[in-house]
Amino acid sequence: MPVMTPGAALRRAAIVAVAQAAVLACAVADDGLPRADASRLERRIAELGRFGANPGSGVSRVAFSDADIAGREYVTSLMRGAGLEVRIDAAGNIIGRRAGGEPSLPAIMTGSHIDSVPQGGNYDGDVGVLGAIEVAELLKAHAIATRHPFEFVVFTDEEGGTVGSQAMAGRLGAEAFEAVSHSGLKIGDGIRAVGGDPARVAEARRAPGTLAAFVELHIEQGAILAESGIDIGVVEGIVGIRWWDVTVEGVANHAGTTPMNRRRDALVTAAELTLAVNRIASTTEGTQVATVGRIQAQPGAPNVIPGRVEMSLEIRDLDAGKMESVFRAVEAEARRIADVRGTAIRFAEVSLALEPAPTDERLRKLIETAAASLDLSHRRLPSGAGHDAQEIARIAPIGMIFVPSQGGISHAPQEFTTPVDLANGANVLLRTLLAIDRGALESRQPAARASD
Amino acid sequence: MPVMTPGAALRRAAIVAVAQAAVLACAVADDGLPRADASRLERRIAELGRFGANPGSGVSRVAFSDADIAGREYVTSLMRGAGLEVRIDAAGNIIGRRAGGEPSLPAIMTGSHIDSVPQGGNYDGDVGVLGAIEVAELLKAHAIATRHPFEFVVFTDEEGGTVGSQAMAGRLGAEAFEAVSHSGLKIGDGIRAVGGDPARVAEARRAPGTLAAFVELHIEQGAILAESGIDIGVVEGIVGIRWWDVTVEGVANHAGTTPMNRRRDALVTAAELTLAVNRIASTTEGTQVATVGRIQAQPGAPNVIPGRVEMSLEIRDLDAGKMESVFRAVEAEARRIADVRGTAIRFAEVSLALEPAPTDERLRKLIETAAASLDLSHRRLPSGAGHDAQEIARIAPIGMIFVPSQGGISHAPQEFTTPVDLANGANVLLRTLLAIDRGALESRQPAARASD
Repeated sequence: MPVMTPGAALRRAAIVAVAQAAVLACAVADDGLPRADASRLERRIAELGRFGANPGSGVSRVAFSDADIAGREYVTSLMRGAGLEVRIDAAGNIIGRRAGGEPSLPAIMTGSHIDSVPQGGNYDGDVGVLGAIEVAELLKAHAIATRHPFEFVVFTDEEGGTVGSQAMAGRLGAEAFEAVSHSGLKIGDGIRAVGGDPARVAEARRAPGTLAAFVELHIEQGAILAESGIDIGVVEGIVGIRWWDVTVEGVANHAGTTPMNRRRDALVTAAELTLAVNRIASTTEGTQVATVGRIQAQPGAPNVIPGRVEMSLEIRDLDAGKMESVFRAVEAEARRIADVRGTAIRFAEVSLALEPAPTDERLRKLIETAAASLDLSHRRLPSGAGHDAQEIARIAPIGMIFVPSQGGISHAPQEFTTPVDLANGANVLLRTLLAIDRGALESRQPAARASD
Repeated sequence: MPVMTPGAALRRAAIVAVAQAAVLACAVADDGLPRADASRLERRIAELGRFGANPGSGVSRVAFSDADIAGREYVTSLMRGAGLEVRIDAAGNIIGRRAGGEPSLPAIMTGSHIDSVPQGGNYDGDVGVLGAIEVAELLKAHAIATRHPFEFVVFTDEEGGTVGSQAMAGRLGAEAFEAVSHSGLKIGDGIRAVGGDPARVAEARRAPGTLAAFVELHIEQGAILAESGIDIGVVEGIVGIRWWDVTVEGVANHAGTTPMNRRRDALVTAAELTLAVNRIASTTEGTQVATVGRIQAQPGAPNVIPGRVEMSLEIRDLDAGKMESVFRAVEAEARRIADVRGTAIRFAEVSLALEPAPTDERLRKLIETAAASLDLSHRRLPSGAGHDAQEIARIAPIGMIFVPSQGGISHAPQEFTTPVDLANGANVLLRTLLAIDRGALESRQPAARASD
């Protein structure tokens, strides 16, 4: 410690006080509400990123790994520092609670996850957790009292299948515990490793109606905001997913002796179908996507005309009707192609139960109002990927706030969101949660239907 | 034996003599040459088909198997019955020789193979061997003297890679003996099992110029004759084969979050290329064929846009220049597609050394003349599959005669050629070989270039 004269110490204290006051002044917006600290968010992103950091860049903080457990301890300490009362539920979800003035009111919840995919980045999930903790910091620093209790959550093993949020929605069955997670541990053993108790997982369930709302802050995953320079994405919902196993039957034959005009080539048919899928999804009005990701030709030898092709078809959209109509268009085109090519195409749907999870229209509007109050540009967009919010939608109204991710990258070390965008997200989240707290969802107006 | 009175015996002998004379009369054509016996050919096809017969239908008489060895004994006995002097060369080829009047002249050779693919049929190869033996039967029965020695050959292990004919062309190296054949035996051990001697395989070699010609009778493998009702195919040559490994590089990405217009989907590019290959081969003038038989998308998950596709490309044609121009057209189209799709396509040629083997134009004309003399319709066509003749082309002028195969089927139990077509083939073969014997190839006119 450097030696300091009493005068110098006094001078220093005065300077610090002035600086603190200045920071506090800057940190309060026109609307009288405090503003998120971009530097703190940036620093915490980096600090959390040390747990499971890979030598080059990015993290492999897969659920239940030592890195995950260390990262959970880190965010738990941040939660405690932000004045939250922290507990681990039976599914291993970390829940930091802040009491409200009216204990009978249902809690308002926010949060996300900190586990990553193998070779992942520092923003997917982390932004929603650290953004939620930033809200808790601001509520504490500015002594903002709320009517509702607030809950700040870190969900268990999102990347391995939204394990914690499924448990909260009451959908995690015992069979899930046997599945092996990215860490190598069975999910049941992983839940135990992070302080949960699979045998009591039912206790993690929240009954419908016991949460006032859930709002998740997350990075976008499609570069729509980053490329158009828009600050805030108002998520319309998390798309549903339908999968089909597609089989094309042609006639396997000698690639040397079978003239071109006598072929019933299953792969040529499959190629035409693949292009049709891409064309239909690209030219139909809307934001639906359709993908052929897997393909195999049989017998698969360079000198044999393929007699059979097996391929996958995936269609995603916010609107179940839209998914169905895109599929019908693909199916009709498939019939036409198969007729022309003298082949047969069969679609067998794979049961997935990933139905679209629209966000609550009232929450979308609250998010838009919050963004506007901060002079932030915003647009509505779907989330093409699954999130914990999708599960919580089964028991509570949900909202999702996206912030730009450069290049739309996710699940890769190159994920990056600027500190300003992190702070923008936290500011919109704070204002949205406080609007809910003020009763914005308690209007006597019936809620607009989520799918409107 | 039934008891017979002397009068009855006499009567019977007279009837038999008349019948034999009638048969002999029927068996001689307008051109004074004998005609093949369709019933005998049909019977022998069935008899040979018993060796390695599968319970349902067809045969699995793979080279060097017990069935192959038994089948070889059967055809050897037929050869001996047809007056041939039979030997096994060092490569295991069965060679039945019939002396000519001018011992200094090079031999005229005909034959094919009797080994089958697993689950094969009774015509591929067998027709050429039994057709050759039919010629030997007719030469013997009608005491036809020839100037040249005639050799009737059963090549070793055609289906496993034209082993016997490669040895005769001096191209079978010691490394080939280590390869495992369909029988499970190494090829070297297999050659020993059928009476050859791998250590002395060089002795099986025939020097260029030591055979006057080689003519192979075979079933067609593309249904061109069967469907157009043409009796005889005059093979223009055995097509060359070129193979490429094709790699498409795109960008793997999340199938849910990546909008359709931001994708660089390697499989969509590969699909467009597959259709281009099919279109170019189908619409270019000529009989070339091009095939994509193998395809794999990476990472190959239904929910990931493929970032990389590996696929095969095969082009076959009689004309090396045509193969090159078809490939250039595919390559140009690939550049265009890759540009539009924001992907990259690379072609890496796989070394195969299967160059086109055109037949000798003089032999084509002799075959046509023979067919015409028998009032048989005929047309020229390429052979899309490899044959022993392709190897022998390296040391002698070759000709190939195709007979119709119903449905163009080969390498399957359903192979079928009618007895009449079998006899037509043997009749054309006999006349072609005798025309060669009479000196048709010894003209002072320079031979037309084979590729003309």
